[in-house]
Amino acid sequence: MNSIPLTPSFENVKTIYDFAKLAGELKSLKRTGWTHFPGIKEVESVADHSWRMSLFCMLFAKDKTIDFERCIKFAIIHDLAEVIVGDITPRDGISEDQKHKMEDEGIKLLLSKIENQEIRDELYSIWKQYEDRKCPESKLVKDMDRFEMMQQAFEYEQKYPVDLSEFFSDSSRITHPVIKSWLQELLEKREAFLKQQNPNQQKTHCEQEQQQQQ
Amino acid sequence: MNSIPLTPSFENVKTIYDFAKLAGELKSLKRTGWTHFPGIKEVESVADHSWRMSLFCMLFAKDKTIDFERCIKFAIIHDLAEVIVGDITPRDGISEDQKHKMEDEGIKLLLSKIENQEIRDELYSIWKQYEDRKCPESKLVKDMDRFEMMQQAFEYEQKYPVDLSEFFSDSSRITHPVIKSWLQELLEKREAFLKQQNPNQQKTHCEQEQQQQQ
Repeated sequence: MNSIPLTPSFENVKTIYDFAKLAGELKSLKRTGWTHFPGIKEVESVADHSWRMSLFCMLFAKDKTIDFERCIKFAIIHDLAEVIVGDITPRDGISEDQKHKMEDEGIKLLLSKIENQEIRDELYSIWKQYEDRKCPESKLVKDMDRFEMMQQAFEYEQKYPVDLSEFFSDSSRITHPVIKSWLQELLEKREAFLKQQNPNQQKTHCEQEQQQQQ
Repeated sequence: MNSIPLTPSFENVKTIYDFAKLAGELKSLKRTGWTHFPGIKEVESVADHSWRMSLFCMLFAKDKTIDFERCIKFAIIHDLAEVIVGDITPRDGISEDQKHKMEDEGIKLLLSKIENQEIRDELYSIWKQYEDRKCPESKLVKDMDRFEMMQQAFEYEQKYPVDLSEFFSDSSRITHPVIKSWLQELLEKREAFLKQQNPNQQKTHCEQEQQQQQ
């Protein structure tokens, strides 16, 4: 085949096969948290989760207070290291520090498949900014990460006979006002659903709180 | 629960549950093209495909000739209408015009779940710009759409006993020089793989071309 002329900055992105293939493993990597529940017949992939997070970021398109395009990049890339180290969850007994170190090595290994150093550095920089959780966008996307998980948990509860209450224990860590409002809506819908499922057996969270206050 | 103060522009994005749930169906919507091959045991979702496309867009982060952030938005949103109309493929016998009309109605129905009109209009505008295929970014992302499918086809061929040659018939429609170079690399790897699989029976594409030229 004839060689194809490329602009100089793209001379080193002519080949992406190894990167594409390795990164593509996020499509078949199941989100580990759900795999502990055999009742969930079809477990989403890490790529599925990342995609809906990036879509949620689009809802911030008109918010002047944040750089929503930066948010989208965080959402797309934030779990990339998992193609190397897997989806580590609190059940794995790995400390936060150790997890961070493993993922840092993982992302570097994956990105080493990209020949163009400028792009490699750019992608690492985006990943690191998210991990460092210093800019407002990284905090917002972390909230979104937690919220997307809860949205998915409730969707599974409606679809399969499972109790995924444990996935809502992080609710109070969500601090961004918009995501908090999404969470509030979600929790209200979930309470209504649980009440309908078990009208006699189960008191909802709200009812328990009301009872304690009396 | 206490109400949460939001900035005025977000008063109407307080609730996203219906939109999130409906859009989230892209996570479990299988890419139809692969479902015709029972040999493929685990079929990717439309969300999986959209996610890797958005990741591919990140490889253009240093290309000054295009607005790669616009590309990312196209990638995230381009298949959203499928949650309403399904993944229509050439096998379905639906004309391009009819498909376009169905998808236009579909995206409008999905976006109607977003209360905030500014954001609803913004998302529709992004979707429409991609569909209209006028700007360079929409053409690039369409090339990426085809390429990502071929990358996935080859990955399935390596993993399962399937011949997915038909998915490479669109190769010549890819025109962007960078994506063409990715495709060239992919086709070379695939030819080498097929040759190794069937060293005696099967002539590779290149060999067939060489033979015809003799």
